Parts: sequence; structure tokens; C-alpha cells
Amino acid sequence: MEIARERDINFLFEASCGGGIPIIRALNSSLTADEIDEITGILNGTTNYMLYKMSTEGCEFDTVLKEAQAKGYAEADPTADVEGYDACRKIAILSSLAYGYFLNYENVYTEGITRITPEDMAYARELGMTIKLLATSRKVGEDSFYAMVAPFLLSQKSPLYSVNDVFNAVFVHGNVLGDAMFYGSGAGKLPTASAVVADVVDEAKHLHRNIMTNWSSHPLKLMDMSEVEGRFFVRVKGTTVDCVKSAFGEVQIVNLKELPDEFAFITSTMRQGEYEERIRALADNILTMIRVKD
Amino acid sequence: MEIARERDINFLFEASCGGGIPIIRALNSSLTADEIDEITGILNGTTNYMLYKMSTEGCEFDTVLKEAQAKGYAEADPTADVEGYDACRKIAILSSLAYGYFLNYENVYTEGITRITPEDMAYARELGMTIKLLATSRKVGEDSFYAMVAPFLLSQKSPLYSVNDVFNAVFVHGNVLGDAMFYGSGAGKLPTASAVVADVVDEAKHLHRNIMTNWSSHPLKLMDMSEVEGRFFVRVKGTTVDCVKSAFGEVQIVNLKELPDEFAFITSTMRQGEYEERIRALADNILTMIRVKD
Repeated sequence: MEIARERDINFLFEASCGGGIPIIRALNSSLTADEIDEITGILNGTTNYMLYKMSTEGCEFDTVLKEAQAKGYAEADPTADVEGYDACRKIAILSSLAYGYFLNYENVYTEGITRITPEDMAYARELGMTIKLLATSRKVGEDSFYAMVAPFLLSQKSPLYSVNDVFNAVFVHGNVLGDAMFYGSGAGKLPTASAVVADVVDEAKHLHRNIMTNWSSHPLKLMDMSEVEGRFFVRVKGTTVDCVKSAFGEVQIVNLKELPDEFAFITSTMRQGEYEERIRALADNILTMIRVKD
Repeated sequence: MEIARERDINFLFEASCGGGIPIIRALNSSLTADEIDEITGILNGTTNYMLYKMSTEGCEFDTVLKEAQAKGYAEADPTADVEGYDACRKIAILSSLAYGYFLNYENVYTEGITRITPEDMAYARELGMTIKLLATSRKVGEDSFYAMVAPFLLSQKSPLYSVNDVFNAVFVHGNVLGDAMFYGSGAGKLPTASAVVADVVDEAKHLHRNIMTNWSSHPLKLMDMSEVEGRFFVRVKGTTVDCVKSAFGEVQIVNLKELPDEFAFITSTMRQGEYEERIRALADNILTMIRVKD
């Protein structure tokens, strides 16, 4: 990027995030009036397809992975997709463009979808929600950011809720624009070609004029993950609602008829560090924890 | 536009369609590899808010119009919104940009939402669908287009289904890109300002270089509306399923418990001219017709 700027040429990479979705050009040339304070994307089509199948058909992770591989959506080695590494690299690129500071993908907290089960999906359904692998970064306060990739419980209010199958989408919040979302095909040779050709046309229109101006090499300052606030959905076994309340105070309890030996709760908003401290009292009882997207 | 091109200057109007949504810049500089064959938008926030309220709260058109006026969403004279004129002008602009031929808004078939009732919404709910005012244009065959603004029944499969409240969205289908959607605030001073400032920045970046290159003054050839194909949802009274079937062949029948004196049906795909011919047999029985978006 620096060499391109020094030499007045262009290095464009629209297809790197969200396939055919024109999100990089939008960040670079349309949202120029805005101070962007959140980007949250469904940036990996393979895992979105898998979670969608798990949600609608109730199948296990392994079954749906084999199906995704048979359809050519997942590689023989699916690690980069299912562990969230692919989404992590993409949110690093988008965040760097949006905030004007360089976010190294190696610093992004990343969690994949391998632990998600049909039981988690059943709880999500009961709550009128769904589970998506979100790649998200946010500006919190003056100069402080967080970034992470993780499965999230998502309510129907979110425009990302109905992004199904192999589709990708990028939600952006700007201080002037408000909420915006860009939706489209995240992969496949044709959508990718659409983005690449648009880059070539843009380069031809801007010979000897550098246009990707908002990329900086100054590192983005990331908060410690323990400082990041959120709500937490927790499934527990062998404990009581009273024990949960004595650890977490008021919580939302969720029961599923088909899982009588366990229950789940959603905490109020708290720092992750606080959650980790409070959950210690239930260390022997916890089955799984999934973040809730607010 | 022609003067701007002749003089190597720019005339930009991002805020004219979809408020803060960067759709015009996307059509102009991102979807350059694509032959676009459909644009379908929710382009009027006022009517979208009204239909959303009618759908979720079951209120009458007049009630929700008063509420929208009280909230400042609808003007004292709401004609341009509720009769679809505003959405009509916007689809004319977007279509002209997308197809490279000039679409005069006066030639666009336009129907508003004043006839939509809570009963229609109840049928939509029963079908797992919703009713939205869509502004749509489509390329059908080599050089033939249609364009219209009308209320449509929309299924949950459509990414436009969950565009609620005053939000706008533009769905685009390109032959390379496939499906894409742009979502955001369609009105309000801040989102509009976001689009205007982005135009100013773009003009400053392109002094003496005309960048809006795909606008033509050659008129777009519109098909006759009678040739446009679709499915039709029809509510009827004082007739029988057999009569409907003898007029339309196989149809999908919808009954609502709360409306025992009537029923509705959805036709198979047919030309609008054919629909109009067949519906004559039920002329005395028809309560309302709403198109179905496929």
C-alpha cells in the first residue's frame, strides 16, 4: 500500500472481503463523511452455510461439514473456515480501512464454530434467535477498539439475522450514516470476478493517481478482551437457578423441554473479565458459552 | 448530465435514492463488470414504516398515516409517498444508471399503498409473507424491460423481507455478481448528509474529470404492462373454489378463520394480460389483488 502511494499507482483488493460485495470501495469512497464505529460481518460463506444447515435441519457439525465438503463449499482441510481464521483476516482488512489504523489479524481474538451443537441451535430457536459466526470490530471511547471473531446469538432485529446459506454481509455503523448493510455472494468464481474486474476498471480510470487513501500503517490499539462488554449465554448442568443467580444476579433463564437435565441463562451486560470471574462458581457445571450480539 | 460530461465536470446525486445508502456510486463504479438485469428497492421509508406498523400492529391505513405524520415521517400532504410517486422517481434514476438507457419516471406503472388493509396483512402472515411497496425494474430478454411500483407480497426468502421500519434497501441482480443488496437509512438529515459529503469528496478528488459515465439519454424500451409475467394474490367473496379453478386452473387457496365470508388464491405465473382476461369471470367477487414477488 505504501509503495503504491509513493509511486502514484493503485493496489486494489475488493474481492478480498465479502467476494462480490462492493464493501471496500464503499468504505474508501462512499463513507468518507463518516466516522465508522462498528463493522460486523458474516465474512465466511462456508461456516454460514454450515450454521444455517444446523439451524434449519438440526444436524451435527460433523455431518454438515461432510455435506459442505461434498458440495465443494469447504476445503478438504476446513481449518481456516471452521476455526474462524478466514473471517479473522477479513475483519482485519475491513477494520484497517474503516478506522484508519492498521489492525494485524494476529491480534484479533478468534474462535471458530466447531463447538456449536444442534442443542445450542435449539436454544437459539427457543429465544427467537439464531447463531452466526460474526467477525466484528468496534470503536469504544476515544481511541480504543476491540476486534473478535466468534459465534454469536443474534436476534431477529439485526439485519444480519436473515443472511443465510453461503451469503455474506457486512454491517457498518457510521456516526452520520447510522446503520448500513451490504449483502451478496461471498465466494464463487463469478462474484469474485465481478469484484476483480471492477478493480481493473477503477485502476484504468485512475492511472497515476492513488485512490486508496485511508490506509495507515499506524497500529490500531486493541483493548484487552477482558475489558470488552457483552451479554453471555451459558448452558449449565447439575446446578440450580438459585446458584446461577447468586453468581450472576438477575439473569434470563431458558428451559428446553427436550433437554430436561440442563438449562441455560443469559447474563446482563458485563465486562468479559467480570463474566470469567463470576462463572468460576459454576466451573463444574458449564456446558457451553456463546456471546450474545446486542 | 450531458453538460457535465461535455465540460469535464461532475453532477452527482448519491442522496437522491436510498438516502445514505451508497447505491449510486456502487452502480457507477463497483458493478462495472456486470450486466444488471434486476433492481428492486424499498425506496420510500414512509410507506415502509406504515406497512411495517400495519403488519406488526394490525392497524388501519388511516390510523398509521396519522401516526406517521405525527412522527414527522409523512408530510401533511402524503400523496407523493403513499401513491408511490416518490419511489417511482427513484426507480427511474436507478434503472437509468443500471441499464444505460434513460427511463422516464412518467412511463413507470405506479400503484400506491392506500388500498392495503389489515386483512391483506393477515393473509400475508398466514402465508409466512409480508407486504412491501416495491419499486422494481427488470430486463426480460435481449432489449426489453419493465418497470413498476406496486405493493407486493414478499416471502421470507427475499433479503428485502426483513427491511423494516423506515429503512430502505436496494436489491440488485447482476449476471456476474448474482444477488446483492444494499441496506440503510433512506431518509433523515444525517444519512442524507453522509451521501452529500461523499459526493463533495468525490468531486474534489475528480476535478475536471467526468466520472458518471454510464448515463445515456437514449430512452429505455418498456414492455407493455400486459406482457409482464407474475403471480397474483386475489381475495374474493361470494364465489367458490370451483369457480376460481374454472377461471384460473390450479391455484393455491388461502383461508383465514377470522374472515369466513371470503377466501383468497394465488395464481400460477402468467402474463398480466392473461390475468386480466381470466379475472373477468370473477369481476363481481373480487375484493383486492396484490402481486406476488418471485
